Amino acid sequence: MKQSEFEFETFGPGLTEITGHVADWVQRESTSQHGLLTLFVRHTSASLLIQENADPDVQRDFLAYLERMVPQADMPTMSYLRHRSEGPDDMPAHIKAALLPTHLSIPVVAGQMALGTWQGVFLVEHRTAPHNRRIRAVLT
Amino acid sequence: MKQSEFEFETFGPGLTEITGHVADWVQRESTSQHGLLTLFVRHTSASLLIQENADPDVQRDFLAYLERMVPQADMPTMSYLRHRSEGPDDMPAHIKAALLPTHLSIPVVAGQMALGTWQGVFLVEHRTAPHNRRIRAVLT
Amino acid sequence: MKQSEFEFETFGPGLTEITGHVADWVQRESTSQHGLLTLFVRHTSASLLIQENADPDVQRDFLAYLERMVPQADMPTMSYLRHRSEGPDDMPAHIKAALLPTHLSIPVVAGQMALGTWQGVFLVEHRTAPHNRRIRAVLT
Repeated sequence: MKQSEFEFETFGPGLTEITGHVADWVQRESTSQHGLLTLFVRHTSASLLIQENADPDVQRDFLAYLERMVPQADMPTMSYLRHRSEGPDDMPAHIKAALLPTHLSIPVVAGQMALGTWQGVFLVEHRTAPHNRRIRAVLT
Repeated sequence: MKQSEFEFETFGPGLTEITGHVADWVQRESTSQHGLLTLFVRHTSASLLIQENADPDVQRDFLAYLERMVPQADMPTMSYLRHRSEGPDDMPAHIKAALLPTHLSIPVVAGQMALGTWQGVFLVEHRTAPHNRRIRAVLT
Repeated sequence: MKQSEFEFETFGPGLTEITGHVADWVQRESTSQHGLLTLFVRHTSASLLIQENADPDVQRDFLAYLERMVPQADMPTMSYLRHRSEGPDDMPAHIKAALLPTHLSIPVVAGQMALGTWQGVFLVEHRTAPHNRRIRAVLT
């Protein structure tokens, strides 16, 4: 078993594709034909996601949906929220993090993640301010 | 570690139970008392799901909920979506795939998945047209 | 590989923090520097979740959101639900269980889960009545 920790800077709500970064590490560390990669984001206001990585509109549309699904706390429909210490994006970020994956497990074949043709690996930021996000990687 | 890839044909939005197919493979490949099975769907418009498998109404109700949660792109409430190249079911399928699991990890005991009494393993199709869906299986 | 099964009693919809219980088991069973823990809940009306564990308002707000996202079956907006044999909380519990994790995989370093500063591990109950919930743990 190999482990490592990646760090990425984010700049407000959005998807950061990390497929290439992760693929490089997996290729470097793989020693057998078959493996399993697990990624784990060490935060409660960011997520990991496998999503279409060809058309940028997919990411844009997904973020637009997510914002409508969990509006900011200063919107009238969210007036019941109490946890507001860090601003109107605080509690919605926790809710989004609960509804999207904290971890991903991806099969590895011959040193490559067995992703489908259109699948990319993304870090999803839910907070408004820039953040450093740590992702722990485990390869078995 | 054992790996395999399963292929299933789907016929529009719905749940296909794959518990038996997966259970057969796990039983055939298991060589020790304790194992861990990981399933990974190699698509961005289909999902894997563990759900109640006794009453067919549960699957029907879940699909009805999912359709209301993420309506087709030609519905007025979804007019903000831009990614429409493959039809009104295209982007909603990506959103559903983001909100439901891409992978499942299930403990294995004595060659059997340690599912609860009512738990079945399902492939969930989000697109309208028939599709061939590939699921990669990893047994450790 | 080590496996165990934990049992927790729940008392209606809510989050039960199980971080300490799981941490004790991981520490006791760990024999190498690097590991991977997988938790799997053996039910279709309860979930596992990694969430902020500092401010109790986060849990309260999340439950309030979840209740609005998937209202009970006796609410007018949910009149299309058919699976009602066990009461108005029955089918909404299955929907919540489909939208939240059934399993979690968490890296282990030197006998400790590599959780972020604010991350706790929770069992989420979706049913109204008290239940005994079984969680299977796998450590590799």
